[in-house]
Amino acid sequence: MQTKDIAALARLPLGDQLIAVRRMLHRHAEPGWCEINTATLVARLLAEYGLEVRLGAEVIDGQARMGVPDPAVLETYHAAAIAAGADPQIAGRLRGGYTGVVGILRGSAPGPTLAFRFDLDANMGSESKEAEHPPVRGGFASIHDGVHHNCGHDGHTSIGLGLARRLAAEKDRLRGEIRLIFQPAEEGLRGAAAMVAAGVLKDVDHFFGIHIGVQALKLGEIITGYDDILGSTKLDVEFFGRASHAAISPHLGRNAVAAACQATLAYLAIPRHGDGDTRVNVGLISGGDSRNAIPSRARISLELRSDKKDALAFLEHRAQKITEGIATANEVTFEIRRMGESRPASSDRELSELIGSIAGGIAGVTDIRGHVAFKGSDDAAEMMLAVQEAGGKAVYVGLGSALGAEHHNPRFDFEEAVMPIGVDLLFGAARTLCGPK
Amino acid sequence: MQTKDIAALARLPLGDQLIAVRRMLHRHAEPGWCEINTATLVARLLAEYGLEVRLGAEVIDGQARMGVPDPAVLETYHAAAIAAGADPQIAGRLRGGYTGVVGILRGSAPGPTLAFRFDLDANMGSESKEAEHPPVRGGFASIHDGVHHNCGHDGHTSIGLGLARRLAAEKDRLRGEIRLIFQPAEEGLRGAAAMVAAGVLKDVDHFFGIHIGVQALKLGEIITGYDDILGSTKLDVEFFGRASHAAISPHLGRNAVAAACQATLAYLAIPRHGDGDTRVNVGLISGGDSRNAIPSRARISLELRSDKKDALAFLEHRAQKITEGIATANEVTFEIRRMGESRPASSDRELSELIGSIAGGIAGVTDIRGHVAFKGSDDAAEMMLAVQEAGGKAVYVGLGSALGAEHHNPRFDFEEAVMPIGVDLLFGAARTLCGPK
Amino acid sequence: MQTKDIAALARLPLGDQLIAVRRMLHRHAEPGWCEINTATLVARLLAEYGLEVRLGAEVIDGQARMGVPDPAVLETYHAAAIAAGADPQIAGRLRGGYTGVVGILRGSAPGPTLAFRFDLDANMGSESKEAEHPPVRGGFASIHDGVHHNCGHDGHTSIGLGLARRLAAEKDRLRGEIRLIFQPAEEGLRGAAAMVAAGVLKDVDHFFGIHIGVQALKLGEIITGYDDILGSTKLDVEFFGRASHAAISPHLGRNAVAAACQATLAYLAIPRHGDGDTRVNVGLISGGDSRNAIPSRARISLELRSDKKDALAFLEHRAQKITEGIATANEVTFEIRRMGESRPASSDRELSELIGSIAGGIAGVTDIRGHVAFKGSDDAAEMMLAVQEAGGKAVYVGLGSALGAEHHNPRFDFEEAVMPIGVDLLFGAARTLCGPK
Amino acid sequence: MQTKDIAALARLPLGDQLIAVRRMLHRHAEPGWCEINTATLVARLLAEYGLEVRLGAEVIDGQARMGVPDPAVLETYHAAAIAAGADPQIAGRLRGGYTGVVGILRGSAPGPTLAFRFDLDANMGSESKEAEHPPVRGGFASIHDGVHHNCGHDGHTSIGLGLARRLAAEKDRLRGEIRLIFQPAEEGLRGAAAMVAAGVLKDVDHFFGIHIGVQALKLGEIITGYDDILGSTKLDVEFFGRASHAAISPHLGRNAVAAACQATLAYLAIPRHGDGDTRVNVGLISGGDSRNAIPSRARISLELRSDKKDALAFLEHRAQKITEGIATANEVTFEIRRMGESRPASSDRELSELIGSIAGGIAGVTDIRGHVAFKGSDDAAEMMLAVQEAGGKAVYVGLGSALGAEHHNPRFDFEEAVMPIGVDLLFGAARTLCGPK
Repeated sequence: MQTKDIAALARLPLGDQLIAVRRMLHRHAEPGWCEINTATLVARLLAEYGLEVRLGAEVIDGQARMGVPDPAVLETYHAAAIAAGADPQIAGRLRGGYTGVVGILRGSAPGPTLAFRFDLDANMGSESKEAEHPPVRGGFASIHDGVHHNCGHDGHTSIGLGLARRLAAEKDRLRGEIRLIFQPAEEGLRGAAAMVAAGVLKDVDHFFGIHIGVQALKLGEIITGYDDILGSTKLDVEFFGRASHAAISPHLGRNAVAAACQATLAYLAIPRHGDGDTRVNVGLISGGDSRNAIPSRARISLELRSDKKDALAFLEHRAQKITEGIATANEVTFEIRRMGESRPASSDRELSELIGSIAGGIAGVTDIRGHVAFKGSDDAAEMMLAVQEAGGKAVYVGLGSALGAEHHNPRFDFEEAVMPIGVDLLFGAARTLCGPK
Repeated sequence: MQTKDIAALARLPLGDQLIAVRRMLHRHAEPGWCEINTATLVARLLAEYGLEVRLGAEVIDGQARMGVPDPAVLETYHAAAIAAGADPQIAGRLRGGYTGVVGILRGSAPGPTLAFRFDLDANMGSESKEAEHPPVRGGFASIHDGVHHNCGHDGHTSIGLGLARRLAAEKDRLRGEIRLIFQPAEEGLRGAAAMVAAGVLKDVDHFFGIHIGVQALKLGEIITGYDDILGSTKLDVEFFGRASHAAISPHLGRNAVAAACQATLAYLAIPRHGDGDTRVNVGLISGGDSRNAIPSRARISLELRSDKKDALAFLEHRAQKITEGIATANEVTFEIRRMGESRPASSDRELSELIGSIAGGIAGVTDIRGHVAFKGSDDAAEMMLAVQEAGGKAVYVGLGSALGAEHHNPRFDFEEAVMPIGVDLLFGAARTLCGPK
Repeated sequence: MQTKDIAALARLPLGDQLIAVRRMLHRHAEPGWCEINTATLVARLLAEYGLEVRLGAEVIDGQARMGVPDPAVLETYHAAAIAAGADPQIAGRLRGGYTGVVGILRGSAPGPTLAFRFDLDANMGSESKEAEHPPVRGGFASIHDGVHHNCGHDGHTSIGLGLARRLAAEKDRLRGEIRLIFQPAEEGLRGAAAMVAAGVLKDVDHFFGIHIGVQALKLGEIITGYDDILGSTKLDVEFFGRASHAAISPHLGRNAVAAACQATLAYLAIPRHGDGDTRVNVGLISGGDSRNAIPSRARISLELRSDKKDALAFLEHRAQKITEGIATANEVTFEIRRMGESRPASSDRELSELIGSIAGGIAGVTDIRGHVAFKGSDDAAEMMLAVQEAGGKAVYVGLGSALGAEHHNPRFDFEEAVMPIGVDLLFGAARTLCGPK
Repeated sequence: MQTKDIAALARLPLGDQLIAVRRMLHRHAEPGWCEINTATLVARLLAEYGLEVRLGAEVIDGQARMGVPDPAVLETYHAAAIAAGADPQIAGRLRGGYTGVVGILRGSAPGPTLAFRFDLDANMGSESKEAEHPPVRGGFASIHDGVHHNCGHDGHTSIGLGLARRLAAEKDRLRGEIRLIFQPAEEGLRGAAAMVAAGVLKDVDHFFGIHIGVQALKLGEIITGYDDILGSTKLDVEFFGRASHAAISPHLGRNAVAAACQATLAYLAIPRHGDGDTRVNVGLISGGDSRNAIPSRARISLELRSDKKDALAFLEHRAQKITEGIATANEVTFEIRRMGESRPASSDRELSELIGSIAGGIAGVTDIRGHVAFKGSDDAAEMMLAVQEAGGKAVYVGLGSALGAEHHNPRFDFEEAVMPIGVDLLFGAARTLCGPK
C-alpha cells in the first residue's frame, strides 16, 4: 500500500526514508508507462518538500513515446495503483501512459540550470521467490507477477527523492534552477525521447544521470562518468503468412514461423562491425495458430546496439534487408515497428572531473575510477545528447554496489547503503555548481 | 444456452434436430477435454432416446489421455458450461478432462457388436467474423474466442445423435449390440487411446468412423472407405537455457530461442522418406524472457505424420536426434513431451463395399468412390486398429460437402444437408448388419 | 584399349560379346557428353551389323543440350578416347558434346516404327578399390578416377548392341523401322531432350526404355512397365557477394557462403506437397575465397523431383523465391542455371502387357510384376512423353538383378547374366510388333 | 626469373634494390610453406651482405608447423622455383615445408640481442588482371594463378633485406646481436610458432615486427606500436555422413552438407562477448558427392579471433559444442583440425616510444601516432609473447601507405616509397639500441 501519511515518510531520518521508499517501490513494481503508483508517490514527496511539480502531459510528449503497452495493460496498473492508495487526482493526470514527473527547485539568485534524471520503471521478468532473496526475506518482493525491479530503478528513484529533500533544505543558499526528472519507461529505451520532446531539458547547462552497479560491483566505488553508452534500436518484426492444413495441403501454406526462425538466426549472424562494438538480440519470439496448421503469423522482439552511430545504422540496415529477404523467401509479408531507441553517448570530462573531486570528500567512497565503458544502454543518453547538442555538459555516473545477481536476473538486488552515497554525491555536485559563489 | 427442454429437441423433425444440435454445438465450441457442454447435451439426448449411457471415467482411462490442458483451462470450460445450462450432475462426472460419452443400444437378439465413433471437440483457432460466414449470418458463431468448430465435429456429433434416434426407433428389430462412441480431443490425436484403454471397443466386430468434406467436396459424394489415414506423433519440445544481459554479458547466456529456431528449421528439413509419405510441421513457437535478455526458455509444438509406421518412426528418431544435437550445440537442456499420437490405418474392403452398396440406395447420394487416401490424421485410426487387431473390421467413411474454406481455416463451414445423408448411411449399415436375418 | 578388331568382337558368342562389351565400357567410363570412346565403339559395332548409323550433330540438337561440361573437360575425354584407340574420324563427329548415336534397321516391308533407348554415360563418383569389388577382381574397374559406371549404363548399352546383333540377323523377316537410340548424358537428365529435338523419335509408334536393378533386385525378375518416373529439374545456383577482411572490416563484406548455407537449408525445408511426392537435394556446395576473407562467391547444385507436374512446378517456384529472398537478405546477387530436366512419365499398359506376355516365354525369367513406381528419374521420360504426346505408346521396363550396392554407390555392380535376358526380352518385343503378320 | 647475378642486385642503389626485390617477389608469389624461390633469394642476399645465414630445419621446428599443404603442392612450388632459377642446394634445404631463413649479424662488442621479423608468404586469392592495377602495368603481376601478394609481405621482405644491407654496412659500429627473421606462412598464422619452437627468439631483448598499411593509409604515417593484435584460431571442420540416392532413399543418407550449413550459420551466430572484441568467419566451404546423392562429406574453414584470451577461448568452446551438437543432430561424425593459431598481444610502450622518437627524425615521416588497435591478426604476436614472457620487450610497428584496395583484395597494392621509410626506421632503432654507447 502507498502510505497515506506522506508527511511522516518525509520526516523519517534520511537513511530510513531512502530504504522505506525504495522498498515501497520495489514491492509495487510497475512496468514502463504504467508507473502510476510510483509516480504519484514521487509527486507527493516532491510537493511535500516544496518543489514545483510538473507531471503527465506537461512533461511527456505523447507523440514521441515509443512502445506504449495496450490500453488494457495501462488500465490494469492504474486500477492497481488506485487500489493501493494512489492519489486518484494525480493518477488521473498520469493515466494512459503519461507517467513522468519533474520536480523544479528555483534558487534564490540567477545561476546555471541543472538536471538530474532518475528512471521509474521496473522490468518485465519474474522475481526470485527464494527465501534468501533479500526482497523476499524483507517482505518487499514484487506483488506483480512477472514484473520486477531487476535493474535498480527503485533505488535510483529513491535517491532522487533523497536529493530533493537535501536540496529543499538548502534552497535558500542555491542559485539557478534545478530539475529532478523522473522518467518512465527506461527499459526498452521508450521514455526519454518523449520527455526531451516535451522540453524538460530546455536550457539545461549540466545534466546528471546515474546507475547502480554497472561495472562497479563494490560498495564505495564511484565511476565518475561512463563513456560509450550503447546506442540501441528496439524493433518488433511481425511476419504474416497463410495458414493451411499441415497434412493435406502444406504446400498451400506460407510459413510465418519458418520465416521468423530464419530471420532470428540471420539477425544473430549479422557480422561484427570493424569500427564499432555491436550487439544483436532476439529476446522474444512467438508464432503459429495451432499444432496442425502451417503457421500464419509470427512475431520477434529484436534489439540492436552499438557504441557507434554508423555501426548501429549498419545493424538496422542489415536487419531491414534480412527481414525483407526472408519475407520474400517465404512468400510472407512483414511489418517492422520501432519500439524504443536511443543513440550512443559519452560523458563530458569536465563534469566527470567534478564528480571525481566531490566523490573524494564523501564518506564511504573508497574507489574513484575515471571513464569506463558502460557496455549497456540507457536512454539517459538521449537526454545527454539533447543537452550536449545545445552546448551543455552531461555526465552519467556509476554508483558501486555488490549485486545479488546481474541486472535483469530474477535474483538481482543491490546494497541499500549505496543510496546515501548517491544522494551525497549528487547533492555535492548541485551545491558546487549552484551554491553561493 | 443449452436447451432446458431436451424432450422438445428430441421431437423436432429429424432434419431440424440435426441442424439445431449442430448449431448449438458450433456456438458453444469447446476444445479437447473441455467438451462439458457438448457432452452433457449428448448424454441427455442419448438418454432421452432410451440408450444406456456411460460417461466420464467409465469410458475414459485417465492414464491414457494425452495433451490434457491445465486444470485452470478445464475449469474455465466447466464453469462456462454450467453457466450455459449444462446439467451440473452430468457435468460433474465429465469434469477434469473426462468428457467422453458412450450410448449403448442392445438389440433384442444375439448378433454382432457394432461401434460408431463421433468426435466432440472444436479446435483452437479464431472463427471468421465476416458477415457472410454462415455461422455469423446464422447467429451461431463460436462464443469462445479462439475456439472454432473448423473441422466439422459439430456435424459429426449431430449425425451421431440423429443415428441414435433412428436406431432407438428401430430397436426392437435389431440384434446384437450397437455402441455410439462420442470421443473428446480428436484434435491433436489425444482422446481415442484413452477410450480404447477404457475398453469401449472390446469385442467390437464392425467399426465405423466418419468425416465430412475430406477429399469429397460435393454434396452427395460418398467415399466408402479411406485408406492411409496418416499416423501422427505430436511432440512438445522445450529448451532451457540461461538468461543474461544481452549487451553486458551476451556470452554468459545460453540461448534457448536460438536453439528453438535451429531445431524448427532442422525439423522442417528432415528428409523425405523413400518408403512412405511424410509430413512435418512446427505449428507453434514461443520463447524468451524480455527483449534485452538472452532468452532462457523456448517451446515448440511439433507434429510428425506418415502413412507408414517405419517412416513415422524415422521422423521421430530424426526429431529426437535433432533435439539432442541442437541442445548440445547451444549448451541448453531440453524436454520432449508426447502430446498426442495415432498410428497409420486403412479401411477394410469388406466394410467399404457394404457402405458402397448401401450408399447406392440413399436419396441425395450422387457419387460413390472407392478407397481414397485420407491425407490427414484422425485418431479414429487407433480405434480401427484396436478392432482390426482383435479380428474385427473397420471402415472410415467420407461424407461429401462443399466447404466454406478448407479444414482448420477461419472460414471453414460445411453444407448442413450432408447430415441426413450421414444418418441414413450409418443407419443403413447398422440395419444391414444387425437387422433381422 | 578399344579393340581394333571389331569384327572379332562382333563374332564372339552373343553371351561373351555382352560381357566383353560391358567390361570395355565399364573400364573406359566416360561422363555425360564425353562418351567418345563409348559412342565410337557403339557406332562401329552397329555398322559391323549392317545398321544405318547416324551420330553427332545428326542426332543431337546442340541448342537443346543441358549441362555440357567445359570445353577443356570435353577435350580431355576426346584425347583419352583417341589414345585408347577410338576411331579418329568418328570421334571427330562426336567431339564437343555430340556423343549420341542412332542405329537404324529398316524392315523389308511396311510396318510400325519402334525405338529402343540405351544410355551411354557413366556417373561422377569414385569406384570402390576393394579387391572383392567385381570390376576390380575382373580387371575392368574404371580407369578414370572419379568417374564410375555406378548406374548400369554399361550394361544397358551392351544390351542395346546385343539387340542390334539379333535384329540384324532377323532383318529379312522384319517389317517397319527399328531405331536403336544410344543417348549421352542421362545422368543429370541432360541428353534426352537434345535427341528429341533432333527428331530421333519422329513417327515412333512404340518406345522402349530399360533399367537394370530398380525395385527389382533378383535376377529373373521383370518389371513390365514402371509408373511415376519422377520428373526432375536440376539447377545450379550461384551467389555473388563481396569479399572483405574478416577481422578489419567484416561489415564491408557481403557473405555469399552465408547465403548459400541459408538457401541450402531453406531448399531442404521446402514443404511437402499435398498432391505429389517430392524430393529436394543439395548435392554439392562450394564457396569462399580464403579462410580470412568474407566469402564473395558460393555455388550450389540443387535437384528437385516429383511424380506430379504441378508439384514439380511448386518446388521450382519455391526454390526461385528462396534464392531471390536469401540473396536480398544477404545483399548478394545470384544466378540460377538450368542444368538438366525431365518431366514425370508413366508406362502405357498396352506395351507393359506385351512385355509381360513375352517375358513369360524367356528362359531365366522367374518373376513378372506389373506397374511399379520407379521412384527415381530417367530422361527416357522425355522420350516417352514425346512419343505419347504424338499418339504413340511407351514403356519403361525393369530388368532384375542383385546389386553390389545401391545405384550411385562406389560398390555398385550388377549380375551380367541380366544382359541376355534383356536382349531376349527386347528382341521378343520387336519381333512381336514387326515380325511377319 | 630469379636473378643469377645476386651481386649486381646487391649493388643497386638501395631504393632501386627495394623496388627490384619487391617486384621479383610479387611476381613469383608463393603461398605459405612454399616460399622456395622467395627464401632462396633472401638467403642469397643475406649471404651476399655477409650475414650468417641459418635456414630450413635449423630455424623451423617441423612438429610445430601448422597448416602445411599437401606434399604435392609443396613439390609444385619447389619445381617452379627451380625452374625460375632458384639455387638448387638452398632450395633442397627449404624443401618440404621448411622455408624459413634467419640472417644473423654479430656486433663487434657485447650488447643487446635484437630481432626483426619479416613475413615471406603470399596469400591464396587471385590478383586483379585490370590494366590499371600497378603490378599489371609494371609487368610484375603474380605468375601463379590464385596466389597473390595481397598483404604486402613482398614489401616487408624487401624492407628486411634493405635493413640487412644497412646493418651490414654499419657492422663494425654495432654491439650485441641482430637477427633478421624471415618467416614463412604468416597467412593462416601457421609459421611463427615453428620458428619460436626452433629457438630463433632465444635471449632476444628487443623484438620488432612491421606491417604496411594497417590503420595507416597515408604515406609518411608511422604507428609506433600496435595494441590488441587479435589472437586467432584457425580450424578446419569436416563432417562425414552417408551417401544415398536422393530420390529412392533420401532417408538412408546422413547429410554432411546440411550439417556444414547449419554449423556455418551457428558459428556466425556465436554471440558477441562482453569482455572482448570477437570475430568469426567461415571462409571456405565445400561438400557433396554428386547432385543426385545425399552428400556424405563436407568441409569448412573456420576462423575465430579476439583481442582477449578468454574471449578467444569462449569462441573455441562454442565452436566445439556447435560442431558436436550439429553432428549429433545430423547423425554424422566430424573431425576438427587446428590449422593455425596465435594469441592476442600488444606492443610495449618502451619500444613504441623509441620508435616514435626515431620516426621524428626520418625524412618523409609526416604523422606519428601512438598505440592503435591492430584489428587484424599476425603471428608476429607469438614471437612478441615469446620475447615478452622471457622478460624482453616487443613492438609491432605500422608503416603508412595508401593502398590500391584493402588487404586481401584482388586490387591490393601499396606505395613502394614506404619501403625506404621502413628501412630507415628499423635501422634507426637498431643503431639506437646497438650503436656505440
